[in-house]
Amino acid sequence: MNIGIIGLGLIGGSLGLDLRACGYKVLGVSRREQVCQKATSRGAVDLASMDLATLADAEVIFVCTPIAAILPTVQQLIPHIDPATVLTDVGSVKAPVVDEVAPLWANFVGGHPMAGTADSGIEAAQTELFVSKPYVLTPVENTPSAATAKVEEIVKSIQANIYYCSPQDHDRAVSLISHLPVMVSGTLINTCHSDKQEVVKLAQQLASSGFRDTSRVGGGNPELGMMMARYNRQELLRSLQSYRQNLDTVINLIEQEDWDSLEQQLQSNHIARKQFVRE
Amino acid sequence: MNIGIIGLGLIGGSLGLDLRACGYKVLGVSRREQVCQKATSRGAVDLASMDLATLADAEVIFVCTPIAAILPTVQQLIPHIDPATVLTDVGSVKAPVVDEVAPLWANFVGGHPMAGTADSGIEAAQTELFVSKPYVLTPVENTPSAATAKVEEIVKSIQANIYYCSPQDHDRAVSLISHLPVMVSGTLINTCHSDKQEVVKLAQQLASSGFRDTSRVGGGNPELGMMMARYNRQELLRSLQSYRQNLDTVINLIEQEDWDSLEQQLQSNHIARKQFVRE
Repeated sequence: MNIGIIGLGLIGGSLGLDLRACGYKVLGVSRREQVCQKATSRGAVDLASMDLATLADAEVIFVCTPIAAILPTVQQLIPHIDPATVLTDVGSVKAPVVDEVAPLWANFVGGHPMAGTADSGIEAAQTELFVSKPYVLTPVENTPSAATAKVEEIVKSIQANIYYCSPQDHDRAVSLISHLPVMVSGTLINTCHSDKQEVVKLAQQLASSGFRDTSRVGGGNPELGMMMARYNRQELLRSLQSYRQNLDTVINLIEQEDWDSLEQQLQSNHIARKQFVRE
Repeated sequence: MNIGIIGLGLIGGSLGLDLRACGYKVLGVSRREQVCQKATSRGAVDLASMDLATLADAEVIFVCTPIAAILPTVQQLIPHIDPATVLTDVGSVKAPVVDEVAPLWANFVGGHPMAGTADSGIEAAQTELFVSKPYVLTPVENTPSAATAKVEEIVKSIQANIYYCSPQDHDRAVSLISHLPVMVSGTLINTCHSDKQEVVKLAQQLASSGFRDTSRVGGGNPELGMMMARYNRQELLRSLQSYRQNLDTVINLIEQEDWDSLEQQLQSNHIARKQFVRE
């Protein structure tokens, strides 16, 4: 089977490396000649080109561009491909993408491989990036089951753990476990950084593993945080409002010295975390 | 020099191991016979007893009990010791301790070694626990400088990094970098756990390293969180209110789609974190 990949960065490049190892023929497209050359020399593609027409022979095409480029890429791609071609994307937000692309292309299946690293670009591509990582597929009511089956077959071959859900449930779940932590953690840094000067200096000297872990994602790449806020705005706001209510409850319990209720809450958090984290 | 240690748990036991290795004679006191025996057999003390009178010969005494027991312990200890004896504690909150103990004992120097582990008890005691870790001393206006110098000399021998500040600045700094993260992180768990059932289940399946790190201290031992809230209540509330204001700002920026200001904030967090964390 010929597989197309548009966008040869960390995700697209890593997909190419694994799919070629599985025996698929991989046709890659990038806007930049230099990236095409690197992808070829790294063995991430059998053939790379700047021309979308190269993908006319692909049965399945992975759109691995940044979120903002998915819709225009699909629009430019459509004149070159057969209606039977299956399209899928790897965007980290699903409802806005599916809402725009599904009406344009019947055989579109939204997807989100949850396997990033701190690095990006074709240089960062690596083999087995997706092994045992979640890979969410979000077919909708009108998605042909044959299209979904074809994407599932390919995703299984790279040994990811496949989950199915609606685009809305995906966006709500990732707003909770991925986007909310970035805002919560960033606000912690801001709060510790904006106290009076001598306390900030002391806090910098005394901060240890607790602060380090809690602040990690909040101190990460600002571009990622911006992407979350822009493209998952509605769900992120809902999660932030819910968080703010829960925070107010904690503040009230401490203000009122309601130690029994606070202890119950801390105990509940202690137990609940084990269902999210396998350590 | 004879050094006394009251409370032979993780901190008291680990102090004993290192101080004996430095050549000090260590006299230990525990309320429990079994702990006295274990501390002796582990080599954490030269002599262990359940009787505070054993410490009559100690020049410096470390009170390593839980915070709530520090004041009653000092009150019971006073009849047995000479006024020249230097007392210090290892409580993780300083103003409440210093406010109560300093009026009872002139030669008292508040202290806080910031070197915990997830474990507790004499079984968890280990050598070199304090090496290169912060050890805060909080002498006040009336504290004799000779008393402070004596504690400093001992703390230097276990190779901790010594910091001096007022009890109030200590409590404010640790409320920011240690106690606030516990509440912020716990509230994240609570929020992710209390959404609608199918989203919670999906979130549990998709949660990865970002959620794991941001939720770690919030899912920790509830007793530690309770101790922070009870004994550092005022400073923790101040930090929580400040956090809540900063969170509201972030929510407003996202609501108003003020992407420039949000990006500035995320960029500022990215830079500020480096001054707190050495990775």
